Amino acid sequence: MDFQEILLRRTIRRFQQKPLSEADFRALLNAARLASCASNRQRLRYIVAREPGRVAAILPHTAYAALVKPHRDPVPGVNSPVAFIAVTATEEPSSHLYADAGAAIQSLEFAAWERSIGCCWLASFDREKAAALLEVKDADRLLYLVALGYPAESPVREDIRGDGSPRYYLDSDDVLHVPKWTVDSITEWK
Amino acid sequence: MDFQEILLRRTIRRFQQKPLSEADFRALLNAARLASCASNRQRLRYIVAREPGRVAAILPHTAYAALVKPHRDPVPGVNSPVAFIAVTATEEPSSHLYADAGAAIQSLEFAAWERSIGCCWLASFDREKAAALLEVKDADRLLYLVALGYPAESPVREDIRGDGSPRYYLDSDDVLHVPKWTVDSITEWK
Repeated sequence: MDFQEILLRRTIRRFQQKPLSEADFRALLNAARLASCASNRQRLRYIVAREPGRVAAILPHTAYAALVKPHRDPVPGVNSPVAFIAVTATEEPSSHLYADAGAAIQSLEFAAWERSIGCCWLASFDREKAAALLEVKDADRLLYLVALGYPAESPVREDIRGDGSPRYYLDSDDVLHVPKWTVDSITEWK
Repeated sequence: MDFQEILLRRTIRRFQQKPLSEADFRALLNAARLASCASNRQRLRYIVAREPGRVAAILPHTAYAALVKPHRDPVPGVNSPVAFIAVTATEEPSSHLYADAGAAIQSLEFAAWERSIGCCWLASFDREKAAALLEVKDADRLLYLVALGYPAESPVREDIRGDGSPRYYLDSDDVLHVPKWTVDSITEWK
């Protein structure tokens, strides 16, 4: 798929209850591993949680779209993620390691969209409980989760200028609108 | 350009001395602004440093490819970057804001490669000096620089397994080799 089309991806929080294939997961992980990282040290590791029981156990410990709560809280078995990919660190995380995680997740999200798969990058979850369910020994090294599945919603982007609000909102048709500042609003030229 | 082709991008540290167009910069910044970010707060801003005098002034305060030093130190006016994009934060940076920066830079790098432009994401630079030259008031909010230009080298990726070394190296033809762990080396399935 053309990159300019992939770039129009949006975060998805409602999912079809259709499983992902092993080829799907591998395509996502391949994109993550090829992302930029500090000094090529590759200090990130991935756990694919795809067993339905494990996914269901993790779900209650994750949080979605605080500004429109509870309207994007997934309903288990109806529109909930069908898998999670956990991003973990091989050492105590530093700022630059968080940046590596951001780069890897962004690359993974693009690869997902190419296959018509939606993602929700989660920073807000119960780290201790999720780490226990994923068998991660040190919860501080569980950096992020990515919730996955085929989309069951179609959020809309809106371009705003510097005085606009970046708060996302639901319209009366339950469509999520996501304001993004224009290039001119966020750039200086020197 | 197809995303699977863009995914094969490599970091570039030697550049042609050919300027980027305003359309080039805007395409890169558009990709950065559309990247995923925490709660859609969009707390990153960008400074395009493209005036040749300013780029030349910043260059000595940046560092490249420590493992093969000095072989990828840019020679000013010969193979040095033709521009920098600085990524800054609107507030005191947290771990998650560093992750946002990683996502934005990864998206920017893909958009660059689509236009045959090379990037080197720089974390290692003199923040005080670069901030002064970019007129950034608080150096702690200058998160990263991205060095830019059309490539004048062709690094090669190698896939390695878990017991391999991720140390990049130059071969006898001065080609940079970049080892990357395979998906199986970095993934657990649950």
